[in-house]
Amino acid sequence: MLTTIGVLTSGGDSPGMNPAILAVARTAQSKGVHTVGIRNGYDGIFTGDFLRLGDRAMSTILERGGTILQSSRCKKFYSEEGREQALKILREAGIGGLVVIGGDGSLTGARFLHQMGMPVIGIPGSIDNDLYGSDMCVGVDTAANTIMQLVDKIKDTARSHRRCFLVEVMGRGSGYLALTTAISSGAQVAVIPEYRVNIPRILHLLRERYEKTKESSTIILAEGVCPAGEFIRRLEEEAGDSSLLQEVRTTVLGHVQRGGAPTHFDRLLACRMGELAVNALLQGESGSVTTLNKGRMALKDLNDVLGRKRHPAPEIIRLARHLQIEFGDVVEPS
Amino acid sequence: MLTTIGVLTSGGDSPGMNPAILAVARTAQSKGVHTVGIRNGYDGIFTGDFLRLGDRAMSTILERGGTILQSSRCKKFYSEEGREQALKILREAGIGGLVVIGGDGSLTGARFLHQMGMPVIGIPGSIDNDLYGSDMCVGVDTAANTIMQLVDKIKDTARSHRRCFLVEVMGRGSGYLALTTAISSGAQVAVIPEYRVNIPRILHLLRERYEKTKESSTIILAEGVCPAGEFIRRLEEEAGDSSLLQEVRTTVLGHVQRGGAPTHFDRLLACRMGELAVNALLQGESGSVTTLNKGRMALKDLNDVLGRKRHPAPEIIRLARHLQIEFGDVVEPS
Amino acid sequence: MLTTIGVLTSGGDSPGMNPAILAVARTAQSKGVHTVGIRNGYDGIFTGDFLRLGDRAMSTILERGGTILQSSRCKKFYSEEGREQALKILREAGIGGLVVIGGDGSLTGARFLHQMGMPVIGIPGSIDNDLYGSDMCVGVDTAANTIMQLVDKIKDTARSHRRCFLVEVMGRGSGYLALTTAISSGAQVAVIPEYRVNIPRILHLLRERYEKTKESSTIILAEGVCPAGEFIRRLEEEAGDSSLLQEVRTTVLGHVQRGGAPTHFDRLLACRMGELAVNALLQGESGSVTTLNKGRMALKDLNDVLGRKRHPAPEIIRLARHLQIEFGDVVEPS
Amino acid sequence: MLTTIGVLTSGGDSPGMNPAILAVARTAQSKGVHTVGIRNGYDGIFTGDFLRLGDRAMSTILERGGTILQSSRCKKFYSEEGREQALKILREAGIGGLVVIGGDGSLTGARFLHQMGMPVIGIPGSIDNDLYGSDMCVGVDTAANTIMQLVDKIKDTARSHRRCFLVEVMGRGSGYLALTTAISSGAQVAVIPEYRVNIPRILHLLRERYEKTKESSTIILAEGVCPAGEFIRRLEEEAGDSSLLQEVRTTVLGHVQRGGAPTHFDRLLACRMGELAVNALLQGESGSVTTLNKGRMALKDLNDVLGRKRHPAPEIIRLARHLQIEFGDVVEPS
Repeated sequence: MLTTIGVLTSGGDSPGMNPAILAVARTAQSKGVHTVGIRNGYDGIFTGDFLRLGDRAMSTILERGGTILQSSRCKKFYSEEGREQALKILREAGIGGLVVIGGDGSLTGARFLHQMGMPVIGIPGSIDNDLYGSDMCVGVDTAANTIMQLVDKIKDTARSHRRCFLVEVMGRGSGYLALTTAISSGAQVAVIPEYRVNIPRILHLLRERYEKTKESSTIILAEGVCPAGEFIRRLEEEAGDSSLLQEVRTTVLGHVQRGGAPTHFDRLLACRMGELAVNALLQGESGSVTTLNKGRMALKDLNDVLGRKRHPAPEIIRLARHLQIEFGDVVEPS
Repeated sequence: MLTTIGVLTSGGDSPGMNPAILAVARTAQSKGVHTVGIRNGYDGIFTGDFLRLGDRAMSTILERGGTILQSSRCKKFYSEEGREQALKILREAGIGGLVVIGGDGSLTGARFLHQMGMPVIGIPGSIDNDLYGSDMCVGVDTAANTIMQLVDKIKDTARSHRRCFLVEVMGRGSGYLALTTAISSGAQVAVIPEYRVNIPRILHLLRERYEKTKESSTIILAEGVCPAGEFIRRLEEEAGDSSLLQEVRTTVLGHVQRGGAPTHFDRLLACRMGELAVNALLQGESGSVTTLNKGRMALKDLNDVLGRKRHPAPEIIRLARHLQIEFGDVVEPS
Repeated sequence: MLTTIGVLTSGGDSPGMNPAILAVARTAQSKGVHTVGIRNGYDGIFTGDFLRLGDRAMSTILERGGTILQSSRCKKFYSEEGREQALKILREAGIGGLVVIGGDGSLTGARFLHQMGMPVIGIPGSIDNDLYGSDMCVGVDTAANTIMQLVDKIKDTARSHRRCFLVEVMGRGSGYLALTTAISSGAQVAVIPEYRVNIPRILHLLRERYEKTKESSTIILAEGVCPAGEFIRRLEEEAGDSSLLQEVRTTVLGHVQRGGAPTHFDRLLACRMGELAVNALLQGESGSVTTLNKGRMALKDLNDVLGRKRHPAPEIIRLARHLQIEFGDVVEPS
Repeated sequence: MLTTIGVLTSGGDSPGMNPAILAVARTAQSKGVHTVGIRNGYDGIFTGDFLRLGDRAMSTILERGGTILQSSRCKKFYSEEGREQALKILREAGIGGLVVIGGDGSLTGARFLHQMGMPVIGIPGSIDNDLYGSDMCVGVDTAANTIMQLVDKIKDTARSHRRCFLVEVMGRGSGYLALTTAISSGAQVAVIPEYRVNIPRILHLLRERYEKTKESSTIILAEGVCPAGEFIRRLEEEAGDSSLLQEVRTTVLGHVQRGGAPTHFDRLLACRMGELAVNALLQGESGSVTTLNKGRMALKDLNDVLGRKRHPAPEIIRLARHLQIEFGDVVEPS
């Protein structure tokens, strides 16, 4: 019988990891099960850096960004030998089930443990929203709000000077953040990895606004396409004349997108996923990840989710089109 | 053929009304249709307070709370005669379809116009989230974040003094805001109209925390149950001894819950609903309201939605239980 | 020689108390002196609730509202006998100097200890800004920003409905918060204890705006004048006809004004005062309070500061007049 | 007699310019004087882009970042001929006095007009706080709060991964923002143009924290020293071994520092300066700038202020030292 659950956070941190930890511990407690926090990702298994998650530790974590359990990449866990050792340590510590909160890489680690016989449930924590199979990951809503609020600030300056601003946001393989914040912040252009950028159309749009209406413009660029500096050079090459682009200012939002107190949506989503993860473990489930699917919580098999590419929802693409946001052309399958 | 669409906001304002207006105007523009903003709710029809929604008016409204079209209650519209007159004015102005953004009462007005032959689509704007048939209304996410952030502030003082705070939040017929913000802000108690409050259990919980663990507590009270002052009196009556309750501090959040720049979620939801409303009108739909249903946009017949009571989702109730939030007993049907 | 300093927070909490604690501990450390945090105000002296303030405890407190040392009122400290006992305990614990962070009442307690021979320096922590002799107290800037941001939210609704809003803010004996936030939030009226409210002029102004320009209005009321409900009744009595005042909405901001992460100004002010307090103790000072005086830090004798009334700066009064804010008439000395 | 005042914003925008414009217009109105807003900086004089600043335009500008009058650099104004023409246009428009809001360059332009006989008063608007003679410029407090809040977010990630973050902030010739936000955000290192960076000490500190205490660190770098990338290279060169620095993450805050709703402090400061500027013009003053001097408003001669270097206040330097912030060595005069 399951008497103790372990929980760890791994990979890049995302806001909402703490509420997920809290919900795991509280739900377990309500079922008479203990929760042990493993610090520093998979690394903490080897160093035995375990933390009893009692009421006192929990009282202030809901509103804090990052992860109180800390996170890291763990080289030892990459080898089969290392994972065997980890499994042994977890079992000796009486941990009969594990909740792993993290992105694609962290959940791949979770699947290894599952395959070796340790019951494991994953919770998708990633601001990129790049996990296939879940409408939202824990942290996306907070990151999107941070980006939107920062672009709102940038627009103050853009309007005051009638300038164009290029804002690079996170999203290595996914344009979700760039596209949806382009909508919510009223940007004119979104450059995302899933669609082929149309440089001439962007230049035309900038010229129109700069020369005719004298209005400011905003371009949101997903980092997965290319760095902001390179994108400017591509614009310049195509434009020939650089006078237009001298007026373009660049901002790379960077790590501020990861931090901050989680939003209401992220706290609620994280709590729902933490609850589901514990219930799943108690019902003998393993090798699954908690997802938001058509507005409902659902468990999905890690094998159906890992390594697959998530595409932007067609309804968001259509909305961007109706709002007259320039986001490039469909990439034809070769 | 539909060449001009009218849009108005009515009843209590909610954050996100402006993005909805913007999406209506932009989507219509992308289809070659004009949009006329009607100011001051239904009242503006009679006074002819119409506003062409061009690019310039639109450029800064996305990030502003409230409604640039303003809102009011309109007595004239309560009579059949008044409504006949309104219809005539709208037709003479060439308005071939209307988008009404507002709560239950405002959408009831919209249904009248629909029944008289004017094509009308409603968008649910209400921070209470009390519309039957939609998972979320425009404004709820912003209001929930505002409440959560304010309770986070209150907890600073509560912890510094180890006190209990009673926080009254909006929600006349619906405990949605109270229950979900109790979860997201880590409150111990939620008092909501849908469940019968259990005063002895609350007193027991307060005593435990106050006397034993010396920890602060938070109670979130939906205004629909009773005013905060009355709730304190009910606690005092049951407690007999008032020493415990002298330490309880009360805050009524009030109108700040309605205002503020809309969140990313609300801007996106409002844009999606505005887009759908215009597309629906262009396809000849009428008498419907845009809803969020299992994560997707859907039109629902106003007749199936108006006047019906929305109940808290069972999964949120279960989550609150697992997180050990006290929220009362099921109300038995009499 | 002074080897250990004690620090405590007392009375109502204010944002910035934590940075003050941090600066006390860090400055002492830089001089080779230990710092002991006394929890729960003067009460913690009797219960021996002492906390070594090391680097770990300090690393996250700068950005947190409230006070990590917690605060309370201590009845035992009201009697001479109690204070003698407190002095004895402090001395036995090796505490050779004390920093007390709090308002007028807390600093009066500090003066008792000073008079009994314990070196004590006070730091004014109070959101009311009611301490005579200091341009600003720790917490005022954060509270003013919170109020201003909340009034900005309320204005969204006020403008959407062209309504008048009455907002009650903190300030028992001082109109500082009410008057300066009326300026910064663009209110039309400030009602403060230092000036006699002119009801007829306010009614005239409301009528003008409500009937002629159809614009929204905001009144900021300091709680020290009277509760918001009573103020509305006074307006009604004078108006005779209540139709105008039915449109006035009331919000009591309450305890949210105390909480929240301290602003840059408050963190800097708190650090400067914490540094000065430690330096003063090390130089043999006692019985003083740190103040901001004409932009500079200055020590003032507690005897010159306690129990005296602070008046609004004449230049702020003149500014309010030039901005055409209605704030009443000079109270003639009787 | 002065019947009409002109007001313009020039150079880089700063939060608080709008409240300054509002205070100019309101104060002038209270004295029976008209105010004309000149759009787009000095450029608007030539294009005659004038705006009557009435009540309606004023009602929402207090809370908005940037400048509603917009700003630009004006080449025409660089030549004496251009300035003669500008003077003529202003006089023909009946503008008998001018308020110029901007930084060092903009105020140099203002002095030209003053020398040519047009009464001019400057208001220092600059987030860098680099104007000699004023304790604070309009916009500094807002920018400092934005930086501090963003560093608070970054610390969430830094703590979760025990990493070092290098944050580049604005400040071309002035380390004011970098040094004071290092204090308020709890950074370990501030690199500012006024002090010579001590690379070996920084490396020692990073090694200590990274290897021994396993704690995260934050370095705040003023852009005036060098770009963040170059600073990392200097650290690497000195370190020899780059393993330590691979863990350093870099964020360039960029243009978000300029935007956002002005803080309470900035709104109040801007209003006080706007009021003083109008009063000064009405009293026949010219060629001066409004300053905050030892907590009081004061006019200073532009000749005493322009082109001079502002040094960090000794008391802030001392505070940084007591808080054990590493900020380099005094630059010896050569």
